[in-house]
Amino acid sequence: MKYWGEIKDPIYGYVYITEEEREVIDSFPVQRLRRLRQLAGAEFVYPSANHTRFEHSVGVMHLAGLLSENPNLSPYFSEDERRMIRIAALLHDVGHGPFSHVFEHLLIKFLGKTHEDMNLWVIQKSELGDILSSLGYDPKTLSKLSVGWLQKEGKAFLDQILRSAVDVDKLDFIVRDTYHTGAQYGYVDIFRIIHTLDLIGENLAVDIGALSALESFMLARVESFKSIYFHRVSRAAQIMIVNAMEAAKDELGLVDFQSPEEYLALDDYTVWTMLKRCEKSEGIIRDLERRRLLKCAYEQTFHVRDWLVTSIFSNEQVRCQIRDQIAEKAEVDPQLVFIDVPTVPSVPYRHSVLLEPMEVPVFQRMRDGRKVQRRLSEVSGIFGVLKGFLNILRVYTVKENLDRVEKAAKDLLGELPSSARISY
Amino acid sequence: MKYWGEIKDPIYGYVYITEEEREVIDSFPVQRLRRLRQLAGAEFVYPSANHTRFEHSVGVMHLAGLLSENPNLSPYFSEDERRMIRIAALLHDVGHGPFSHVFEHLLIKFLGKTHEDMNLWVIQKSELGDILSSLGYDPKTLSKLSVGWLQKEGKAFLDQILRSAVDVDKLDFIVRDTYHTGAQYGYVDIFRIIHTLDLIGENLAVDIGALSALESFMLARVESFKSIYFHRVSRAAQIMIVNAMEAAKDELGLVDFQSPEEYLALDDYTVWTMLKRCEKSEGIIRDLERRRLLKCAYEQTFHVRDWLVTSIFSNEQVRCQIRDQIAEKAEVDPQLVFIDVPTVPSVPYRHSVLLEPMEVPVFQRMRDGRKVQRRLSEVSGIFGVLKGFLNILRVYTVKENLDRVEKAAKDLLGELPSSARISY
Amino acid sequence: MKYWGEIKDPIYGYVYITEEEREVIDSFPVQRLRRLRQLAGAEFVYPSANHTRFEHSVGVMHLAGLLSENPNLSPYFSEDERRMIRIAALLHDVGHGPFSHVFEHLLIKFLGKTHEDMNLWVIQKSELGDILSSLGYDPKTLSKLSVGWLQKEGKAFLDQILRSAVDVDKLDFIVRDTYHTGAQYGYVDIFRIIHTLDLIGENLAVDIGALSALESFMLARVESFKSIYFHRVSRAAQIMIVNAMEAAKDELGLVDFQSPEEYLALDDYTVWTMLKRCEKSEGIIRDLERRRLLKCAYEQTFHVRDWLVTSIFSNEQVRCQIRDQIAEKAEVDPQLVFIDVPTVPSVPYRHSVLLEPMEVPVFQRMRDGRKVQRRLSEVSGIFGVLKGFLNILRVYTVKENLDRVEKAAKDLLGELPSSARISY
Amino acid sequence: MKYWGEIKDPIYGYVYITEEEREVIDSFPVQRLRRLRQLAGAEFVYPSANHTRFEHSVGVMHLAGLLSENPNLSPYFSEDERRMIRIAALLHDVGHGPFSHVFEHLLIKFLGKTHEDMNLWVIQKSELGDILSSLGYDPKTLSKLSVGWLQKEGKAFLDQILRSAVDVDKLDFIVRDTYHTGAQYGYVDIFRIIHTLDLIGENLAVDIGALSALESFMLARVESFKSIYFHRVSRAAQIMIVNAMEAAKDELGLVDFQSPEEYLALDDYTVWTMLKRCEKSEGIIRDLERRRLLKCAYEQTFHVRDWLVTSIFSNEQVRCQIRDQIAEKAEVDPQLVFIDVPTVPSVPYRHSVLLEPMEVPVFQRMRDGRKVQRRLSEVSGIFGVLKGFLNILRVYTVKENLDRVEKAAKDLLGELPSSARISY
Repeated sequence: MKYWGEIKDPIYGYVYITEEEREVIDSFPVQRLRRLRQLAGAEFVYPSANHTRFEHSVGVMHLAGLLSENPNLSPYFSEDERRMIRIAALLHDVGHGPFSHVFEHLLIKFLGKTHEDMNLWVIQKSELGDILSSLGYDPKTLSKLSVGWLQKEGKAFLDQILRSAVDVDKLDFIVRDTYHTGAQYGYVDIFRIIHTLDLIGENLAVDIGALSALESFMLARVESFKSIYFHRVSRAAQIMIVNAMEAAKDELGLVDFQSPEEYLALDDYTVWTMLKRCEKSEGIIRDLERRRLLKCAYEQTFHVRDWLVTSIFSNEQVRCQIRDQIAEKAEVDPQLVFIDVPTVPSVPYRHSVLLEPMEVPVFQRMRDGRKVQRRLSEVSGIFGVLKGFLNILRVYTVKENLDRVEKAAKDLLGELPSSARISY
Repeated sequence: MKYWGEIKDPIYGYVYITEEEREVIDSFPVQRLRRLRQLAGAEFVYPSANHTRFEHSVGVMHLAGLLSENPNLSPYFSEDERRMIRIAALLHDVGHGPFSHVFEHLLIKFLGKTHEDMNLWVIQKSELGDILSSLGYDPKTLSKLSVGWLQKEGKAFLDQILRSAVDVDKLDFIVRDTYHTGAQYGYVDIFRIIHTLDLIGENLAVDIGALSALESFMLARVESFKSIYFHRVSRAAQIMIVNAMEAAKDELGLVDFQSPEEYLALDDYTVWTMLKRCEKSEGIIRDLERRRLLKCAYEQTFHVRDWLVTSIFSNEQVRCQIRDQIAEKAEVDPQLVFIDVPTVPSVPYRHSVLLEPMEVPVFQRMRDGRKVQRRLSEVSGIFGVLKGFLNILRVYTVKENLDRVEKAAKDLLGELPSSARISY
Repeated sequence: MKYWGEIKDPIYGYVYITEEEREVIDSFPVQRLRRLRQLAGAEFVYPSANHTRFEHSVGVMHLAGLLSENPNLSPYFSEDERRMIRIAALLHDVGHGPFSHVFEHLLIKFLGKTHEDMNLWVIQKSELGDILSSLGYDPKTLSKLSVGWLQKEGKAFLDQILRSAVDVDKLDFIVRDTYHTGAQYGYVDIFRIIHTLDLIGENLAVDIGALSALESFMLARVESFKSIYFHRVSRAAQIMIVNAMEAAKDELGLVDFQSPEEYLALDDYTVWTMLKRCEKSEGIIRDLERRRLLKCAYEQTFHVRDWLVTSIFSNEQVRCQIRDQIAEKAEVDPQLVFIDVPTVPSVPYRHSVLLEPMEVPVFQRMRDGRKVQRRLSEVSGIFGVLKGFLNILRVYTVKENLDRVEKAAKDLLGELPSSARISY
Repeated sequence: MKYWGEIKDPIYGYVYITEEEREVIDSFPVQRLRRLRQLAGAEFVYPSANHTRFEHSVGVMHLAGLLSENPNLSPYFSEDERRMIRIAALLHDVGHGPFSHVFEHLLIKFLGKTHEDMNLWVIQKSELGDILSSLGYDPKTLSKLSVGWLQKEGKAFLDQILRSAVDVDKLDFIVRDTYHTGAQYGYVDIFRIIHTLDLIGENLAVDIGALSALESFMLARVESFKSIYFHRVSRAAQIMIVNAMEAAKDELGLVDFQSPEEYLALDDYTVWTMLKRCEKSEGIIRDLERRRLLKCAYEQTFHVRDWLVTSIFSNEQVRCQIRDQIAEKAEVDPQLVFIDVPTVPSVPYRHSVLLEPMEVPVFQRMRDGRKVQRRLSEVSGIFGVLKGFLNILRVYTVKENLDRVEKAAKDLLGELPSSARISY
């Protein structure tokens, strides 16, 4: 590929791009990612975490390129696929709404759509479709690949590069989020993983020689989840933004968009400004702008499955009941009590996906060159723990009600299976 | 000082804060800094440069604290001054408008105010004044100290900590901007400078033992100026934002604020959203959101002073004349030709200050402990060069007119003293 | 404490030292640590890993100082203890022999001494004793504290600072070894651990609020163990050095020293030079100097205990038998077959200690300030895995015999409990 | 090139090597570089500066490879030259003696040889010659290229890659020395320089677009020179080692080697051990091992040329006279007075070369692709200063004589042109 220029990146130094990549990058849907912060809410814990989906997307493109040049994988790429995987990686987040995963809550609840659905729509129907066509790509194919849904026969690895336990999305954000937060959990040797990835059949697989890097990566994801993405304070802010958006939804028409253009007009800047001016949401924004956040009155972590836990975590009605019971017991307005769980889409957090068991194919390279597949959970005890069941249940409320809600929640929820551990 | 908690920072690890500092930090005027990017325009060159004045302000507070604990300086601080210098450092940027220095252009042109004036106003008249009073501070004193205008008798160093060639503002941003851009020019050993700073009389002075660190710091400032702050592409974006704001100013009432609250309601988010919706500015914002930036048709750097250069750089009328002549010669609309210079406030860039000669007091510590003052320009040849006269003249226009404007500018301006060097 | 000067350190920036510390640092036994590499053998995997016990010792002193200033612990230190803990930390490794843990094998095997015993001897009987006495310290007390054997009544934490699961020795080396190897496993937020450490009774305990940092630290230790300290190639080199020293021991009188001075005359430089010139060992050194290392013919990892595994790992005679059987089966000289295990002192590696279960006291700080003790294995699943039983059995031989020894070892050892996992 | 494996490096992550490179790396002359420290003497200022010429050589090979793949240069390399430049870079330091530049003093003084001469000899006459031949290289050609003396017609750039103002040797060590010392002066964007290097005719030239990186690199070299290589304390240690070697030279036969093998048997380990055991040098080594270093009694820096300065710096006899006069005046043994200057080979320091004017070809790339050559001293004022004349004169003596020698030196040398500046 002939490079047109370079983009300076604090993580990778320089990202070299081709002329057609530049054209896609300079389109409105990609440039708009500059106004979608990567970690909405986390800035209240890590003030420097102001990085956006734009530089992340450029980074993901870069890693996809590196992966396609890895000597093990390189022979399996056609020249077209090599070009395509970079563009698809660049576009993997264009469907996101304001405050990323926070807005996805509204998409799911009111439109039954995920950000992946939006990705397909935006790539196919916005100006991106025209640009891609003019460059010789099929927008439909590219849009599917961008979310790992292409399902090309015999080439499962193409989807896996963008959607698997070791996809380039995760490899980039674990390092980038660490860099901008300063949280230090994610200084992982991702280049070792990228360089040693190989195929077993048509599937991506990790060489056991990179097991230490893989284990570090997996722990980094869990620690980042606990300390950044699902940090108690980050979540408080996210819940407040969701509440503001839900309250103002009708008045502002937040989910009434008819075209990709109308959808893409929503970004962090415009929506924040709108929420601030809308009577229904201005109070919440006023609090956020003064860092008066919801307080966590109760928190419990679960590592086991039983029926009560499962129903709390999967059933909004059950959560509403519990909320009402707590509110009644605490004698506070139920509107000021919030039940938060990560693994259900009520207040969705797509990083929750990381908590699902995700078996990564691994293999051992024999002295004669053969690759012998192994089960990761067999070769790695750490992985065994990390893939286990984890759920966090929190009850939030406003500062004034903190003591009463804490007491009520403890009374009501204290009997939950006490095998709970605080951490992995 | 009893610490209340800590703030995680990717540069310094942890910044420990007291309870009263927390109270100031959580005020609206300080929290608002989260929505003022540190380097408006630079993100078009360095996509990761999305850091804000908020984390910078926390960092400046931290460095002010370190400096006040430096063994050389520590004895000269009263306990009150030690508390005060941190708060003042925290507040040194609260008077900034949207896109920081970009908005300052409007402040100067239409209101005759600088961001320092605004700092005084905001600290004294907004809720900050009340908070500071309730914590036992005099808002007026603090506001002056925050911009280095306190002029306390016998304690010139207090102002210099916040306003001098080696003030904590510059020490923080040189490292922080490098970190978030990835530009690498600013990995300076600022802790050596901070630890060795001392007093000569009542003035801050640098120990010659830290000369290498000081020289590195000074070169870093110049290289950062050239490669980040005044980068050709950063400037193109800044000029466009200024133009959008000037065009929409009356309709949006951008400089009609009557109270600090009205002023502080302006931030990057709200103003960007407003500009996008205002007919007068929407075209410019549309271009910015697609990275269709002005192009630089002509650039010349000056290291000498003569009357023509001086008049171009100091006189807006002269610049308008030149613009009109270029436009006429190039047969293009004068509205699409922009003359850009850093050292005048037409399109202001307060970093321009760095280019003015700024003698730093230095001293040599003798074996018997005496401090003998030296002249920096005598002991450091590099400083001699760096403090010299530098000016950059650029002519920008839209892509379509590039060739014609380039030719016209060369014809008209080519005769300028050719002693020009491209760089320091 | 009044600082005399500073030492530049790539990890901590500056380490400030007092005049009495300088005097101890400039003594021969401490300066000698410059000629003891921290990770003997690891340079064959990580060529940049040439750091020595000297800078590590300075770093450990620095961390001990930070810990004693931590607001939770600070009140429990007398001024004398605060000075003493830094000096003790500085001296914690002065008893090491050439190639550190490698020489300890000879100490144990032929003299029945550990490096801790040597530490006591060196501190009490060398010039260090005189220096410490002249500075007002009791050498005996200091020597005990230096290895965590002081057992001061009511102050167990003093020993634990230098000898526990989170002692400053480990906190320093995990970060320093990562820095110099480039292995990336150890970028742990050790400052969070240091800042949040507290006491439960008289014992050091970790705040659950720092659990993520603690888990990262523990994983870092395990990954570093696997990838650096006990790396297959590092171990090959260490085994060779041990063999060279054993072979030449009598001729060179390596364990015949009568005084600390004679012992301290042994360092990496002198012993390497001697081994090269001694007929008995020159062959091995010649191979090492051409990177002709032993090859690993067989490797198995154990996570369970059963009698066979236990006897292999604890009983040198059993290992010799196995070695002889393998050699016989492979029809090679038994002298060219080496059984390597980490947890026994045959080829000792004191880092093996890390693999023993080590319960770290942890506590949860309640809203009312109370500290409620918890069991780490209850709150942290990861810790549960990491503290488990782990052992690695390897068989090494020379390149020429590799295939035959591999086959023989597989035949003989292949029936071992197959529950073995490759990794934690 | 087909990669055989990788080497982990803390600066570059992974360095990929071919099988033939591995064979050269594993030869004795290259492996021996592990026992030659990169910065002998600097460890007394920067305790972590224990890196060796081995990892530096691997790094230089890596950068040579990157440069040969740079899109501007790549077309000018034949496949053979591409392989060869990496091997030559790997071998560029194999001729060094113990303590590198320190031993070069003896080479020059007693044998009239430089380390470049030794490089040719070692590559051609040691086992390296055989290995290279067997791999299809001409040892003579390679040896010349390794020191930049190949002079291949029409391909001057080949030599310049290894010997010029921006050669890969300097690019590597500036970053590597910074990393291991922690001195922070050298975090330069060397990848920008490497990626933008191009040819003007047959010569390497720097694109003015990388001018900021180039200026930073040049300042980094000067600051590193002042703060690391020629640091007052580093130099004291180097002078002592030179003195020890000169004193013991005859007894130990340090310059009596007859074959490359005898020469290569000398390394830091063996020579240090020998010096310690030789009566003539043991006193000096005893002092070094207790950090009892020579003290600098007088220091002056010159930026002008006049006859006195020039003669001091170029004429050993003049220096001896001055030494004797100082000793007489101070009433001390002339053997205990040392005149030190960097730019003459009396106590040679090849880094002194950096202080000579070294014009770097630079060019400006026009919009039409043309490269227009410029003079660096015209486009860069900083370069103008940095290339200027600089010399440092120091007088060292033992601690006891410090005051007397200081006074005598001031009396005698104080009248030197006072235009002296302390720094660039």
